[in-house]
Amino acid sequence: MTARIWLNGRLVEAGMARIDPGDRGLLLGDGLFETMRAVGGRVPLLARHLARLHDAAALLDLPVPARDGAIEGACVGVLEANGLREAALRLTLTRGPGPRGLLPPAEPTPTLLLAAFPLPALPPAARARVAHLTRRNEHSPLSRLKTVAYLDNLLALKEARAKGADEALLLNTAGRLACASTANLFVIEGACVLTPPLAEGVLPGVTRALVIESAADLGLACRERPLLQADLARADGAFLTSSLAGLRPLLAIDGQTIGGGTPHPLLEKLTAAWHARADG
Amino acid sequence: MTARIWLNGRLVEAGMARIDPGDRGLLLGDGLFETMRAVGGRVPLLARHLARLHDAAALLDLPVPARDGAIEGACVGVLEANGLREAALRLTLTRGPGPRGLLPPAEPTPTLLLAAFPLPALPPAARARVAHLTRRNEHSPLSRLKTVAYLDNLLALKEARAKGADEALLLNTAGRLACASTANLFVIEGACVLTPPLAEGVLPGVTRALVIESAADLGLACRERPLLQADLARADGAFLTSSLAGLRPLLAIDGQTIGGGTPHPLLEKLTAAWHARADG
Repeated sequence: MTARIWLNGRLVEAGMARIDPGDRGLLLGDGLFETMRAVGGRVPLLARHLARLHDAAALLDLPVPARDGAIEGACVGVLEANGLREAALRLTLTRGPGPRGLLPPAEPTPTLLLAAFPLPALPPAARARVAHLTRRNEHSPLSRLKTVAYLDNLLALKEARAKGADEALLLNTAGRLACASTANLFVIEGACVLTPPLAEGVLPGVTRALVIESAADLGLACRERPLLQADLARADGAFLTSSLAGLRPLLAIDGQTIGGGTPHPLLEKLTAAWHARADG
Repeated sequence: MTARIWLNGRLVEAGMARIDPGDRGLLLGDGLFETMRAVGGRVPLLARHLARLHDAAALLDLPVPARDGAIEGACVGVLEANGLREAALRLTLTRGPGPRGLLPPAEPTPTLLLAAFPLPALPPAARARVAHLTRRNEHSPLSRLKTVAYLDNLLALKEARAKGADEALLLNTAGRLACASTANLFVIEGACVLTPPLAEGVLPGVTRALVIESAADLGLACRERPLLQADLARADGAFLTSSLAGLRPLLAIDGQTIGGGTPHPLLEKLTAAWHARADG
């Protein structure tokens, strides 16, 4: 974490910033977050991230304790305070402290936290393993919200790493492909771009949405369709999407190469279209 | 939260206690907890709670940063510092702060937090609703660990409350009964006590284990068996178990009474046997 963060309306030294030990985010996972890419000291896709945060917060009946304009100001302020222009920003919203037990207080005092980090280097093309240890629960609406509960994703990633891969693909409870540990999944079949629908237990990724729009811009067919492991094995190409890494080629699954083991030619065009939208 | 809590080896004023804003418990749900009942200024079942915590921590590769004896001393200290003898204690373990991203630091500095609360009044007999909004994911090992991720349970409880019930029963993804929002489920058929096996997505409750042992003491047949909603509807009785409320009668499901709508006669015997073990 960088030297200065924004917490509940104020820029503070990270080493002095205090989260209450009764915070329901800490104690019950009662919180949401957004990971956003800053470009040139701004967050071009802030409106999309905030729209997703507001949707999720509404479903959880979790008040957002700042206006969008104040959050935008906080983004600029945190970036400036840390001398960052290209950066990763993490915005975390929790229901704040509450009494003991599961039920939240009638009038919560939410915690809103924003921290900036140097933008990580782009990861290399992914070679993934399908997680066997855990599955994504498409029967829970939380599978479609960016809550702070990421332990299943961590278990999957650690399993993949232990087997020599650098990414994990999670199946849903029906045994179909859902997503990677911190990214959405796309498959290319001919000139058609495919991704699992949200109902499969999929987070509505901001980059996922931009890729669907970019494909339409490029005149490519893009469909949300349930995907089997066999679809991935015989695909012409595949890639993962996330706010920080953009479009990341997926070249192998469980040791088998996908589409010849090199990035699909469409990936370059889709990446250019994504940059045009994501770099503001 | 009471005035004084125990945090990483020290008794501190709750209002001064600081959780780092980079704590992975807060940011990623990377943590576990135990809720324990204190009787006469001690925690009679501490060894069982710590055994469960150690098992879960081992599966998550999460170090416990204090010896059991130190945690026992902390329990006594927190109770004394707050003038409590009959109380609820919450022990929370997280992986502590880490760098941005999903993968944990190689050498974590875990957070260990212990807080005491006045023992809540025993809840009335439960009238429950089966949750339709979400399901418990028996395909994840986390369904059998007491991680801090309780948002699905909150969604289920809020759904039940909105429908006029006071408890929720969660189904697993196969549509079978798993548990209540913060309790295990038991059904009585004739002289046989039944509860879903852990593989159904069930937390290995400390009180659940004591009831299984108590049933054996009483010469009752007790079996772990998958349970359908129809099993509950035609049961002779049912109850919920948790560390704070012990054995709580379950008298109705979705508006239909269970076993005549009064607590089953065996419940009194099982409760006495539980008290004999749980009150130390």
